[in-house]
Amino acid sequence: MTMDIAAVNALPYEDFVNIFGNVVEKCPIVTAAVWSTRPFGNLTALEAAISDFIDALPESGKEGILRCHPDLAGRDLQIGTLTRESREEQAGAGMDALDSAEASRMAWLNGEYKKRFGFPFVICARMNDKANILRQLSERCRNEREVERARGIQEVKKICRLRLQALVLPDAPNKL
Amino acid sequence: MTMDIAAVNALPYEDFVNIFGNVVEKCPIVTAAVWSTRPFGNLTALEAAISDFIDALPESGKEGILRCHPDLAGRDLQIGTLTRESREEQAGAGMDALDSAEASRMAWLNGEYKKRFGFPFVICARMNDKANILRQLSERCRNEREVERARGIQEVKKICRLRLQALVLPDAPNKL
Repeated sequence: MTMDIAAVNALPYEDFVNIFGNVVEKCPIVTAAVWSTRPFGNLTALEAAISDFIDALPESGKEGILRCHPDLAGRDLQIGTLTRESREEQAGAGMDALDSAEASRMAWLNGEYKKRFGFPFVICARMNDKANILRQLSERCRNEREVERARGIQEVKKICRLRLQALVLPDAPNKL
Repeated sequence: MTMDIAAVNALPYEDFVNIFGNVVEKCPIVTAAVWSTRPFGNLTALEAAISDFIDALPESGKEGILRCHPDLAGRDLQIGTLTRESREEQAGAGMDALDSAEASRMAWLNGEYKKRFGFPFVICARMNDKANILRQLSERCRNEREVERARGIQEVKKICRLRLQALVLPDAPNKL
């Protein structure tokens, strides 16, 4: 069920955080912070407020956001401790149905990535399929740390956009 | 079970966030961010890193931290959705054993406080008893918003210190 922006703006902070608290994975502080900047003109403005808050964090805070993300096809998926949103996104990209060779390769690459960067590989699973995810994970392992930090945060924002779109009606067309 | 600081410094980020992720209530991003600044010389240095990260947040981010906290003797306590740490702290201060007059007064004051400030009343329950909490809630309702935001964050840091002390051995005495 999606809400219009007027309904979003009328929410007390507790409801706002309950509904939007996981648009950035396991970082309800982000949602809880942007409530201070309401009212939002439309969905785009809400998304921009979240993006601005993230951009204003120190680099350690951006890495902190990445570290709140689960591995793709990782332990949380295996033992059933993913958030609802992550579970649906990972399933949509086939992460819960890897064959054993794919699963081994994913686990090995995730490990290499974390060893190199100190944060997990983050990618918007809804915008990628299994083959593409494996390819990008392999390629991105070779990047520099600063590049990957920025790239991970870009992906966080894509994930956030899609999670928001599931909750809030799209912007009204401009009146001419 | 408490760890020494060398064991803390040796933790991969996933274990570090699992163990320390709730020293700031529902804000694992804080813990996940300060992992970037390890190694820590001792418990005091870890605590200082957390405090510095919080201080560097914009005011909206500090309000965001406060909004991730449950009400004292509130809905989360009643329906059993408090974090383990909060449940123990609230029980220690008698918040789970209010008589009906106390419960009504607490609910009313929590509501007034949230209406006035847009974030919940935060106090280190372990350092206060029931009577003291009710008195301070009543008094702090009359403060200015900026004063209460800063005061709430002070209390967040006290809560964080006690949660850390339950997990990490105290600093070694200085060698003379």
